[in-house]
Amino acid sequence: MVENFDEWFHDILENANITDSRYPIKGMAIWMPYGFQIRKHSMNIIKKLLDKDHEEVLFPMLVPESELAKEGIHVKGFEDEVYWVTKGGQRELNEQLALRPTSETAIYPMYSLWIRTHMDLPIKYYQIVNTFRYETKHTRPLIRVREITTFKEAHTAHSTKEESDEQIQDFIAIYKEFFDELGIPYLISKRPEWDKFPGADYTMAFDVIMPNGKTLQIGTIHNLGQTFAKTFDITFEDKDGEHKLVYQTCAGVSDRVIASVIGIHGDETGLRLPPKVSPNQVTIIPILFKKGKEEVLAKCAEIKAQLEETGLRVNIDDRDIRPGKKFHDWELKGTPLKLELGPRDLENNITVAMRRDEGKKIEIALDSSLSDNVIDLLNKTQENLSESAWNFQKSHVKFTERLDEIKDLVETGNVVKFHWCGDEAIGRDIEEKTGYDILGIQEEISEGECISGKGNAKYIALMAKTY
Amino acid sequence: MVENFDEWFHDILENANITDSRYPIKGMAIWMPYGFQIRKHSMNIIKKLLDKDHEEVLFPMLVPESELAKEGIHVKGFEDEVYWVTKGGQRELNEQLALRPTSETAIYPMYSLWIRTHMDLPIKYYQIVNTFRYETKHTRPLIRVREITTFKEAHTAHSTKEESDEQIQDFIAIYKEFFDELGIPYLISKRPEWDKFPGADYTMAFDVIMPNGKTLQIGTIHNLGQTFAKTFDITFEDKDGEHKLVYQTCAGVSDRVIASVIGIHGDETGLRLPPKVSPNQVTIIPILFKKGKEEVLAKCAEIKAQLEETGLRVNIDDRDIRPGKKFHDWELKGTPLKLELGPRDLENNITVAMRRDEGKKIEIALDSSLSDNVIDLLNKTQENLSESAWNFQKSHVKFTERLDEIKDLVETGNVVKFHWCGDEAIGRDIEEKTGYDILGIQEEISEGECISGKGNAKYIALMAKTY
Repeated sequence: MVENFDEWFHDILENANITDSRYPIKGMAIWMPYGFQIRKHSMNIIKKLLDKDHEEVLFPMLVPESELAKEGIHVKGFEDEVYWVTKGGQRELNEQLALRPTSETAIYPMYSLWIRTHMDLPIKYYQIVNTFRYETKHTRPLIRVREITTFKEAHTAHSTKEESDEQIQDFIAIYKEFFDELGIPYLISKRPEWDKFPGADYTMAFDVIMPNGKTLQIGTIHNLGQTFAKTFDITFEDKDGEHKLVYQTCAGVSDRVIASVIGIHGDETGLRLPPKVSPNQVTIIPILFKKGKEEVLAKCAEIKAQLEETGLRVNIDDRDIRPGKKFHDWELKGTPLKLELGPRDLENNITVAMRRDEGKKIEIALDSSLSDNVIDLLNKTQENLSESAWNFQKSHVKFTERLDEIKDLVETGNVVKFHWCGDEAIGRDIEEKTGYDILGIQEEISEGECISGKGNAKYIALMAKTY
Repeated sequence: MVENFDEWFHDILENANITDSRYPIKGMAIWMPYGFQIRKHSMNIIKKLLDKDHEEVLFPMLVPESELAKEGIHVKGFEDEVYWVTKGGQRELNEQLALRPTSETAIYPMYSLWIRTHMDLPIKYYQIVNTFRYETKHTRPLIRVREITTFKEAHTAHSTKEESDEQIQDFIAIYKEFFDELGIPYLISKRPEWDKFPGADYTMAFDVIMPNGKTLQIGTIHNLGQTFAKTFDITFEDKDGEHKLVYQTCAGVSDRVIASVIGIHGDETGLRLPPKVSPNQVTIIPILFKKGKEEVLAKCAEIKAQLEETGLRVNIDDRDIRPGKKFHDWELKGTPLKLELGPRDLENNITVAMRRDEGKKIEIALDSSLSDNVIDLLNKTQENLSESAWNFQKSHVKFTERLDEIKDLVETGNVVKFHWCGDEAIGRDIEEKTGYDILGIQEEISEGECISGKGNAKYIALMAKTY
């Protein structure tokens, strides 16, 4: 894990061709080609997981003020950070239009039209879109931005509360699988009442501990109950002929997922990308001398073709520069496996493979076993990155029974676990005394004393310095 | 081809689950699940074609007014239809921000930063994004909208004019291949001076004749010369050490591509989707009786698995409704091939295949040849749709030497070809006299008389009623 994470993160985004933050609007950056590919492969994973049981749709980006304002609690949560379109051409619009901060108020008026009977339920739609927040806090690329370029939001409607609770569990399972594929560890908790999504009954969240000890919220899942169903009049005729309100859920992940892939796995040398999302899974580096140059390049092309047949993403770096510079570049860019091939390797019918995560070199034979060996090395890389990340996280969650110990633990990069009674006033008091946020409730317990010293504990709570 | 095309088009979008236009902002619609899949497969084709030699990126959606206003001719072309964000939260912004109508002014300030020497050239980037136009004309879903949800825009920079002209030819070749894969015929022309892209040296355009005889612009390619390079100071140090301005091109396709796929191939019964973009390429319809139901369903699942192995997209319609209703639904939705399977077919080890384009039924054997036979039928469908569409178009382009014949030809659904001298005043006069638009110049010629009767012809021009 890197020292001085914030600086490292800022630099790597530019040096590895991920984003460029010099765009002339603060908090809005450009996805550069290499970063775009990481984003694409990451989104393909979540799409594939969702497509099993959800349908992709696409809603307009603008929301009329009258719709956004309908749900009072919801709009309160967003009104300070909504961008407003007030003019079309030279003319003032009759009604100002919000750049969606999230799409509940764009989608649910349509659910009201689409849902007629229990036969229309459940609806399980999702979209991947850009959303906007007029952030007043300090912005950071991919972490706190004004245009969230990659907001995956799912919105479901159900006929019973039970089904909506099951849907929450389904989303949890999907997100677990998603983050597992990225090798990203997570802490799952139920957000405290005062930190749930505006309008939700309850919010489940995924957080990851970044190398600097701060937690980053990387996924949220909300049971909306019937709040929006009442506001937007989303009703259905049940089997018994009765008209009832639907139960709803929504769930989101954003650009922050990419921030965590970069931040969690990276080291002082650069990125270490999990093979599943790396733009190139294998980079072939020819070692060229005047003599035998053509043969080496021909063999590299052959290896590339052989590996691509199994679906691997492979590139050859045949730039006319020193091999050492090429190694450095691909270490910076985090390609999981490098294959080096020079004239002597060609003679010996071998290639020298180097895993990015470990840095050790091993020789592998250039025969029909090559693809299997490469896939094996990639799988081991994927597992090792994931395991290291989980180990780091596990070693940075510390339990304490003493309020006065929290500060030290958090300031040395830990998330703190403690017993809590669940009372809001006491929770807020703990937050105030320590200066940190309660992430949420990790589990229910039946014994123990609240860390406040004011009664029995009901929960294990998590507390952290958050992004 | 359908009668009363506008009404048909409006209805099919809703009935086939493509878009829903009841969103509470005029000119902005929702992509429904089935439509979204058509859109996705269409975009996958253009992405694949571009990815060979271009890189995908993603720029912010908002453009500062100061950047948008920099290129005078360009901003003139768009200022009446730009949506403006003027407020963030409750506060007025210091500078108003445009919702991109197109991204030249978002991208080129960055090109100015990124391009230093001839080694940085060419740059060939593209993005697929949402763009916005405050349309004052009558809006139509997918054809004239206020949020273009699917704008593929490519932006290139080169060190020489020759290279930029070659890039125009490359884009033409890419678009040809793209439209060929969709079975969409096209007319390629060079837009007249008064209709080129604001800021461009010249504009090449792809138009298709829709069933009602109106042409729809489905792709444009612009040679920007050095106009924007001057405005945004995009220079490079050449091999000879001299600082020079780059030459630029850009090229775009939009939602209209999907409009043409739907409009061109559809018939009175519904959609007829080219296999390459159809959400389901094969729909299996089990014919179920109480007896033998399980066996038939098991065989359907087996067929599905067999076909999916070859990469085909297959669904089984096992809804508990009459088979006739299922047939009707999938004809409406345009699935290219239906396979019907009942107990008797199972006994005979055959399935009854029905192509959507022809409607004829043929029996095919349920053995190892099945996949090959299905792929063959899909290929024939693809070819037949394409050929029919090209035949329609060819029969609706008519040459005339008489100005007074144009009106009749256009009003009976044709695009008119005629000889033209190329003079702007005369061109505009022809437009005024006929009431139609000159699409552009199809080819140069060396003899013949201008249709105006006022001199020699230099070009064959195309004239049409346009969307």
